[in-house]
Amino acid sequence: MAPVPGSYDYDLIVIGGGSAGLACAKEAVLNGARVACLDYVKPTPTLGTKWGVGGTCVNVGCIPKKLMHQASLLGEAVHEAASYGWNVDDKIKPDWGKLVQSVQNHIKSVNWVTRVDLRDKKVEYINGLGSFVDSHTLLAKLKSGERTITAQTFVIAVGGRPRYPDIPGAVEYGITSDDIFSLDHEPGKTLVVGAGYIGLECAGFLKGLGYEPTVMVRSIVLRGFDQQMAELVASSMEERGIPFLRKTVPLSVEKQEDGKLLVKFKNVETGEEAEDTFDTVLWAIGRKGLVDDLNLPNAGVNTQKDKIPVDSQEATNVANIYAVGDIIYGKPELTPVAILAGRLLARRLYGGATQRMDYADVATTVFTPLEYACVGLSEEDAVKQYGADEVEVFHGYYKPTEFFIPQKSVRYCYLKAVAERHGDQRVYGLHYIGPVAGEVIQGFAAALKSGLTINTLINTVGIHPTTAEEFTRLNITKRSGLDPTPATCCS
Amino acid sequence: MAPVPGSYDYDLIVIGGGSAGLACAKEAVLNGARVACLDYVKPTPTLGTKWGVGGTCVNVGCIPKKLMHQASLLGEAVHEAASYGWNVDDKIKPDWGKLVQSVQNHIKSVNWVTRVDLRDKKVEYINGLGSFVDSHTLLAKLKSGERTITAQTFVIAVGGRPRYPDIPGAVEYGITSDDIFSLDHEPGKTLVVGAGYIGLECAGFLKGLGYEPTVMVRSIVLRGFDQQMAELVASSMEERGIPFLRKTVPLSVEKQEDGKLLVKFKNVETGEEAEDTFDTVLWAIGRKGLVDDLNLPNAGVNTQKDKIPVDSQEATNVANIYAVGDIIYGKPELTPVAILAGRLLARRLYGGATQRMDYADVATTVFTPLEYACVGLSEEDAVKQYGADEVEVFHGYYKPTEFFIPQKSVRYCYLKAVAERHGDQRVYGLHYIGPVAGEVIQGFAAALKSGLTINTLINTVGIHPTTAEEFTRLNITKRSGLDPTPATCCS
Repeated sequence: MAPVPGSYDYDLIVIGGGSAGLACAKEAVLNGARVACLDYVKPTPTLGTKWGVGGTCVNVGCIPKKLMHQASLLGEAVHEAASYGWNVDDKIKPDWGKLVQSVQNHIKSVNWVTRVDLRDKKVEYINGLGSFVDSHTLLAKLKSGERTITAQTFVIAVGGRPRYPDIPGAVEYGITSDDIFSLDHEPGKTLVVGAGYIGLECAGFLKGLGYEPTVMVRSIVLRGFDQQMAELVASSMEERGIPFLRKTVPLSVEKQEDGKLLVKFKNVETGEEAEDTFDTVLWAIGRKGLVDDLNLPNAGVNTQKDKIPVDSQEATNVANIYAVGDIIYGKPELTPVAILAGRLLARRLYGGATQRMDYADVATTVFTPLEYACVGLSEEDAVKQYGADEVEVFHGYYKPTEFFIPQKSVRYCYLKAVAERHGDQRVYGLHYIGPVAGEVIQGFAAALKSGLTINTLINTVGIHPTTAEEFTRLNITKRSGLDPTPATCCS
Repeated sequence: MAPVPGSYDYDLIVIGGGSAGLACAKEAVLNGARVACLDYVKPTPTLGTKWGVGGTCVNVGCIPKKLMHQASLLGEAVHEAASYGWNVDDKIKPDWGKLVQSVQNHIKSVNWVTRVDLRDKKVEYINGLGSFVDSHTLLAKLKSGERTITAQTFVIAVGGRPRYPDIPGAVEYGITSDDIFSLDHEPGKTLVVGAGYIGLECAGFLKGLGYEPTVMVRSIVLRGFDQQMAELVASSMEERGIPFLRKTVPLSVEKQEDGKLLVKFKNVETGEEAEDTFDTVLWAIGRKGLVDDLNLPNAGVNTQKDKIPVDSQEATNVANIYAVGDIIYGKPELTPVAILAGRLLARRLYGGATQRMDYADVATTVFTPLEYACVGLSEEDAVKQYGADEVEVFHGYYKPTEFFIPQKSVRYCYLKAVAERHGDQRVYGLHYIGPVAGEVIQGFAAALKSGLTINTLINTVGIHPTTAEEFTRLNITKRSGLDPTPATCCS
């Protein structure tokens, strides 16, 4: 029997305690709503990994990957320190156990702070797996049993989990990004299957930590990103000694007697088959929205390819049910997007606000050893949208001052601005490969949102010596055919 | 006898081969002018240090200081690497000799590239000290003798050099930033006199390299910068173990028998005198424009406090004589400012262009160990300009993700946005203390130039996890009195 309107347990139940769900729940309480937030993590199939409140970002996403990336960069820094005169023995080895312990300790502390924050902000936290009974009723499976709870409004923010390929041995022997950050042994020689940003980032820090990753790519690298930049990222990784198996798909994984994993694979163009052994196989072939456990048909909510389509107000097809974060269809799967969308939704629902989430021109960074960050349109999307004749691309290679003494490769330090060709030369997109790419691009994202033009960009005075200032020095167009390599540094 | 118009040796003589002069000379040639560029470096009084073409930035400014800063950060990185699990022995020592050698090698390579670039671009380079005979004639003192050259137009870009205080022993025993980057012995216990950005940067990298700097400050720290930020920078340096002698001026420097320098000094408020011994005394009390050797009265060019006043077209009071770079009165002494002003001037002189240099909203960075970068107005200048009631300051402390594992102090990681209080909340200034500050602020400088508002800033989606994204999370005003320390990281 459906609950009686006006007598619901809560004004709002948020399903999912990740970035989107927590931000939405806290903001809703702040605006006077009675809110519960459900969170539940199913253990991974291979290793049984699970984690606390906070969702993907905190536990198995941004935070641990940035820390592992940082660990890898610090290993590099030790070698660089020697070149700057520090008497350091740079024949160093990582301690995987200590690293994982440090990363996990940090995560636990964030989990704890998150719990305290929820308590302070009066969000009722329920550690349970929710499934709809009807559009106002949820069945929550708790440790202690089941509980039925009702609400006027629901926000689905369950996010996603890594996919496994449908081949023999995938689930039994492979791991994913859900496992790597808490792995209780060194990964060793690792096959990373998939060349999206998660795959490349994992391969990048594993290499930096001294292991031997190989990247297997079925089709293209960094799908959805500017493909010139994507190929530069791949090349910079190859230069560091990470082999890429192109046009290749895995066929099976078997465990050998010596404990190593035998992977058979196939070139999709030539049909040629081959095999190799690895210590670890990591699937990074994409993520799946967690719709299955929700019993969405009971609530009448439509799905599209394991995601939930929403309108510009994050509403599903059912009037009182919304969705935010990675679970929504066709939007960037990024923590700050999830947070802002969740917060704005809560303000619209309970604060009388009208502002909608703007999913355009969202900046993002790929934390490969040499990082890649971008905001706005890729070159190909700009051409598709405006026509090749109407797009001007300014580009340049550059040499970070700090790279000279340690003689680091500057071969892939490159940036470009994709812009309107005529008129005010409005900037459509900015792309940067180099150190601290995220820090470099963030401000330019605010500039793009403020209507940045090429004229403004090149008349912005640089901060010397930085790498970010290279954007202000852009003066060579692709169309000109001139050499985009730099001459002098300071005049 | 004055030269006959139309028969000058050159269209343009640029006096000074630093950032401003070189940029101007090259751009003038590109626009069809016949150009000579004079460059000459007088040796420093104490150690006789001199250097090649390129000016302050390349030889004794931005470039070597950024490299020493980087060396100091890399020392820190070795300690951090250990905390992330690398089995590195972090009881490390710097090798001053090797560091100086590496820095000087890089500088020499830039000098060489600069010379080649000038030759390629057909700028005649003259290694000589120029002084005016009349407004169209210059006497150049060369190694090989004297040479008189004439030109239609002159651009004065001679820059400046560090000042010495007028006290006993200052010149005999003290050094400056002109000497420190090529010093042939370890600086050891160093008294840095002056707390402008040069003094603080030198003290910062010396500490990071394991030496013992003390900073002596007569009045305020980082004059001209936002004083709340300036004091945070000073506090962060004190936290690292750099003592600040406040309200103190030096009285004399004497060399003791053991070779150490005895410095007597006085507190300007209490009148109390004291003394201490140092291995090195470094004057960083300001810079002096190099007008003296130019014989400006011969050309009729006015000066103002050892600088040259110019109008908005960089013209001096004499029709055919211009000035750019650090030598001009009342403008920021910054390399990219000098370059852009020099280039725009050449385009106006020879390219038919009309665009003038915009000296407003120039971003800059202080490369203290924890860096400080800003663009636009300081809080006090905004209040002065618009009134306290019309200014809103958003601020926050933040915790860089990477700081947790090595337990680095987050006490001074702080940022603020100074903005219009009402209306569109146009952003007047942005201020940031933290890692890679220059990389963070550069893009925001372009945003400010594009008319950034608080509404746009907080609706710019962050890049997670970066420190730059903290600008998009600003939500607490100083006026509210609320606690600006952060709660959670990812929701």
